[in-house]
Amino acid sequence: MDNLKFEVKDVNFENKVRESFSRQTVMQTIGACLRKVAPGKVEIELPFRSDLTQQNDYLHAGIITTIVDSACGYAAFSLMEVGADVLTIEFKINFLSPALGDIFLAKGLVSKPGKTISVCTGDVIAKIGDKEKLVATMLATIMTIRK
Amino acid sequence: MDNLKFEVKDVNFENKVRESFSRQTVMQTIGACLRKVAPGKVEIELPFRSDLTQQNDYLHAGIITTIVDSACGYAAFSLMEVGADVLTIEFKINFLSPALGDIFLAKGLVSKPGKTISVCTGDVIAKIGDKEKLVATMLATIMTIRK
Amino acid sequence: MDNLKFEVKDVNFENKVRESFSRQTVMQTIGACLRKVAPGKVEIELPFRSDLTQQNDYLHAGIITTIVDSACGYAAFSLMEVGADVLTIEFKINFLSPALGDIFLAKGLVSKPGKTISVCTGDVIAKIGDKEKLVATMLATIMTIRK
Amino acid sequence: MDNLKFEVKDVNFENKVRESFSRQTVMQTIGACLRKVAPGKVEIELPFRSDLTQQNDYLHAGIITTIVDSACGYAAFSLMEVGADVLTIEFKINFLSPALGDIFLAKGLVSKPGKTISVCTGDVIAKIGDKEKLVATMLATIMTIRK
Repeated sequence: MDNLKFEVKDVNFENKVRESFSRQTVMQTIGACLRKVAPGKVEIELPFRSDLTQQNDYLHAGIITTIVDSACGYAAFSLMEVGADVLTIEFKINFLSPALGDIFLAKGLVSKPGKTISVCTGDVIAKIGDKEKLVATMLATIMTIRK
Repeated sequence: MDNLKFEVKDVNFENKVRESFSRQTVMQTIGACLRKVAPGKVEIELPFRSDLTQQNDYLHAGIITTIVDSACGYAAFSLMEVGADVLTIEFKINFLSPALGDIFLAKGLVSKPGKTISVCTGDVIAKIGDKEKLVATMLATIMTIRK
Repeated sequence: MDNLKFEVKDVNFENKVRESFSRQTVMQTIGACLRKVAPGKVEIELPFRSDLTQQNDYLHAGIITTIVDSACGYAAFSLMEVGADVLTIEFKINFLSPALGDIFLAKGLVSKPGKTISVCTGDVIAKIGDKEKLVATMLATIMTIRK
Repeated sequence: MDNLKFEVKDVNFENKVRESFSRQTVMQTIGACLRKVAPGKVEIELPFRSDLTQQNDYLHAGIITTIVDSACGYAAFSLMEVGADVLTIEFKINFLSPALGDIFLAKGLVSKPGKTISVCTGDVIAKIGDKEKLVATMLATIMTIRK
């Protein structure tokens, strides 16, 4: 059941993910950075900011969702062939703990790559000092768009 | 099957929703406004901004999610008794059309209020000129927190 | 926002839905019947049976899911062109009340028909005597398969 | 991030899960068996039967859902204290491959135990001969009910 070795259809996958990410203006606006880009696996980091919170000073669920949605989408995109585009069809996300932390790391992972439909899981980990806590987990359906 | 008339447990429901929304700093950061607050029904509006997009210049799915998550959460919160707090346990959201538009209106509606667990539906409508398009639909599980 | 009038691409839609349903052997096994078949809207009925329960003598959540999954899939299928097949990609379902009742009616409705991806909502209503109660609500992603 | 060691609050957890499962009449009706019961981890097995299919002779998505819903619910139940009852609030399930196989194994795993809300993941693996294939994956929200 180990699906962690994926077929890479575009040797330029890392560049295309990084280039696409750089066009997501929302990432600059909220201060998110693209970290690891591996085949089927992408990580995005967001330092806490007090202007991105909900009413109790935690990071807003929508901002957590923003980084893990992109991490999942780019994980799927990294496995797509040259010229294909990526589209999030839908996702579900569970919030497991209050989003308290200094840094939030969203990890997107392809669990089932597909010709048209790929399924990804995403986790968001909050880091406070040297402690880590899982704050959210996502299950996402991503589509390959061919022109 | 018409659940649109809800019991109001806190006559001050509109004030408490507006006061809580004003503490969601992310809403100011992205430029979202709270519009309608009715029992079990809340609307949040977001004008398009080019610094909130994904790679194809559409509004990022996470930003759409941010406004409709809050609309659903506050729809549930509007029906809660004095002193209770609101927590999003999880949601699922489908993206139906590209998020192109001048203004995005998120509508949250309680479909089943509950003592501990409430279920809400949310829609996001994009307005371009005088046309409207449904761009996303959410199904959310919201919890009442009592101290 | 009223999406209830759909374009019918196969005038034979009702026959094809009824023929496909008759090949779902599980429906006979659990005693489910196909009721209404309209463009984008399908209803399936299941009388309560004590051999389909969970541990507290309610209808098992998986059986509720079985009828509303088919209702959603066939609602989408009713709008597909001749020769296309239907596939459930995923769904989310919330259980709103204990599944107690004499008869369970699953209603599947297309909320957004699409060339490849359609989104449907489904409700399951329990009838006890002349009372009705909403026991579950589904949001489903259905795919059109072309050979 | 390894959550696989859980606190056991009821030393009698295996008996209580097996006893509850034996009252789920639907399991006998479809021919499902309870296999492994460990703290936070439960497995249910279902041999293929031609009277549980959808229109293309695959196991119906609702039947796959039935076994993995129970596997997730009992995984959460295994960690609950004496006297508590278990309730599925909602789940999302993605169908990854056609449900073809001789035997289907549903694995439910707690990913985040909680006082009131637990989150579980579930996988369904189809076995054909000595090959295995992941056919579905679930993310579920389970509630602890105290009287």
